[in-house]
Amino acid sequence: MNKFFNIINVDKTSRVAEIVINGIKIQTPCFMPVATQASVKSLDSFELNNIGYNLILSNIYHMAARPGITYLKDFGGIHKFMNWKGLILTDSGGFQGYSLSHRVKVKDDGIIFQSHLDGKEIYFKPKQVVRYQEDIGSNIMMPLDICLPKKASLNELKEAIETTYSWAKESITARTTIDSKLFGIVQGGTNLELREISAKKITSLDFDGFAYGGLGVGEDKELMMNALQSVNELLPENKPRYLMGIGSPDDLIKSIRNGFDMFDCVLPTRIARNGSLFTEKGRINIFNAKYKNIDKPIEEKCKCYSCENYSLAYIHHLFKSKELLGYRISSIHNLAFLYNLMSVTRKMIKNSDFSLFAIDFLKEYRSTDPQIQAEQKSKWIQSQGREN
Amino acid sequence: MNKFFNIINVDKTSRVAEIVINGIKIQTPCFMPVATQASVKSLDSFELNNIGYNLILSNIYHMAARPGITYLKDFGGIHKFMNWKGLILTDSGGFQGYSLSHRVKVKDDGIIFQSHLDGKEIYFKPKQVVRYQEDIGSNIMMPLDICLPKKASLNELKEAIETTYSWAKESITARTTIDSKLFGIVQGGTNLELREISAKKITSLDFDGFAYGGLGVGEDKELMMNALQSVNELLPENKPRYLMGIGSPDDLIKSIRNGFDMFDCVLPTRIARNGSLFTEKGRINIFNAKYKNIDKPIEEKCKCYSCENYSLAYIHHLFKSKELLGYRISSIHNLAFLYNLMSVTRKMIKNSDFSLFAIDFLKEYRSTDPQIQAEQKSKWIQSQGREN
Repeated sequence: MNKFFNIINVDKTSRVAEIVINGIKIQTPCFMPVATQASVKSLDSFELNNIGYNLILSNIYHMAARPGITYLKDFGGIHKFMNWKGLILTDSGGFQGYSLSHRVKVKDDGIIFQSHLDGKEIYFKPKQVVRYQEDIGSNIMMPLDICLPKKASLNELKEAIETTYSWAKESITARTTIDSKLFGIVQGGTNLELREISAKKITSLDFDGFAYGGLGVGEDKELMMNALQSVNELLPENKPRYLMGIGSPDDLIKSIRNGFDMFDCVLPTRIARNGSLFTEKGRINIFNAKYKNIDKPIEEKCKCYSCENYSLAYIHHLFKSKELLGYRISSIHNLAFLYNLMSVTRKMIKNSDFSLFAIDFLKEYRSTDPQIQAEQKSKWIQSQGREN
Repeated sequence: MNKFFNIINVDKTSRVAEIVINGIKIQTPCFMPVATQASVKSLDSFELNNIGYNLILSNIYHMAARPGITYLKDFGGIHKFMNWKGLILTDSGGFQGYSLSHRVKVKDDGIIFQSHLDGKEIYFKPKQVVRYQEDIGSNIMMPLDICLPKKASLNELKEAIETTYSWAKESITARTTIDSKLFGIVQGGTNLELREISAKKITSLDFDGFAYGGLGVGEDKELMMNALQSVNELLPENKPRYLMGIGSPDDLIKSIRNGFDMFDCVLPTRIARNGSLFTEKGRINIFNAKYKNIDKPIEEKCKCYSCENYSLAYIHHLFKSKELLGYRISSIHNLAFLYNLMSVTRKMIKNSDFSLFAIDFLKEYRSTDPQIQAEQKSKWIQSQGREN
């Protein structure tokens, strides 16, 4: 039980496990809030920790663009910079190769970004990207990969798989420490054959865990869900399985049912700032006039800081008044909702009760229209170059 | 010692005193953070209380415009709405008669606002304004008054004093409870004779405290300071003296030296969101590149949440990255700075050491250029109709 990843219980294809890094323990399935620019938008380190989070995600491309890798290294690392006592997983910039594609040239040996901040060239090569992540003190590193849009051709997908594989091998050789874990990324879009090919290649390498990338990029939801079903078959059981960029409550439950352990997404904080709040029955829109008179918390049974202290009526007022506090109260609730959902999920898996729980949850939770969801995500991705 | 206002010590013309309302004690001199729209921008009730604040300010015009007086009354009052356990002073809308003047008609019997939100007419009459404040549960109420721009003519000023006096008398008759205190407002701009006339009229009425209004509206700083010197002579000693709309650290010290007890201003939070932070040597601009590498708090001796947890380097990064967290960290610090300044001030007055302290403080504190300050304030006032 002294390993980095210990499975506690398996319930059909769902697992509950423990990740231990630097003495910090994280139970999976877990969701990771996203601190793209070394800040989970509107929240500070202690608020995240008070919700229960001990593992968040940041992004090595954004850290390279600002404040800079050497800067962060000299400062003493990203944890110290943010005053974050938990763990940090850093994404590699592969996703930005897709989301900032108008500012990107993909080469055989890496990705050339024209910084979205000042236009300066940032040349990301696989080995350097690992070193960058080690330099800033990342606890779980992701190798540089190629993430393609949903409209990518078969040939493009095949090529991307080859390049991602060759970069993965380079990434492994670049490691200088086993203290920072390194996960491999499986690509292949929603094409099941290609995903299998990619998985075979990537899992042949000595990574500490494995991720599915290139999903949740606006593709048809059914195709995505279909692709996720392969996880239990394609990824080894004894290592963490991380599904990148997925974060709606229903998607999480379905993905956990398939066998995934870790998740990240800007969704809960992004929609919170737009007034969209998670409840067990689905999202609510706080701008709706019906909330003006409701002197109750977002969810009566929720014990988060926001629900313990503020009413729907007040949050409605804050949003109507464009008060910054509204964004924070909502972000805390949405992140607490996912944290609690993962806690319950772990409990259910421990008791081998997850299948029934998942059915009940999905029956109760009204999913956001997949098309609206996809459109919102595309809009967000397009805005990245400007917003961040 | 069971009165509403108890003077603890007088040091020359400066006083330290205690205000007691509903069992809550506030020591003066004190600064009141401003929650224009029932929210001190970017902060929540507990953060304000953790800094030490127990008395904040809100505004009855803004509450009437949104969410509405009847609404707030039915909800159970503004304290419950905000979940604020301390006291609230509400301004009367007189200032908005000036700051929103393009949307205002001043009549003999009141002020007609065309709501800055939806254009709806809001007719404020003196008696109703007191009832409104009682309705929402204000602890200290201000009567409707006429606040004029710095360019007002002598005749306009004289007329405003008469109207303010007549409204003040009406306001007193409108009270239905002594639980909500009611202060009188002295006007007269920077004209010493008029201020004296106004003071004589207003202090002849049975108010619980008295305020100087109509200052800090972009007038020449020397003229303003000159007008403040009259306070000890013109306002009674046995009641609180409140200087409205003043909040820079040097102005506070000077005003306390003259004999004022209470202050409010959006300045500390407004400039915080622009990256301007209080220190004992004056304001610093966090955008300045020199802070990028400073792994120290804003002020080493400051014990506020922001200074205990975050570095200048990180705050600089947050501002450069337009991260919402930066606005909050800065607002906490600026409000804590003023809270601590008031604490030290009270201690100095208790020990009859204030004169020397004031001289030392003002020597150390580099004032912001008065012209820049006046321009910033004008810009803010002009933006009110749009921003709030």
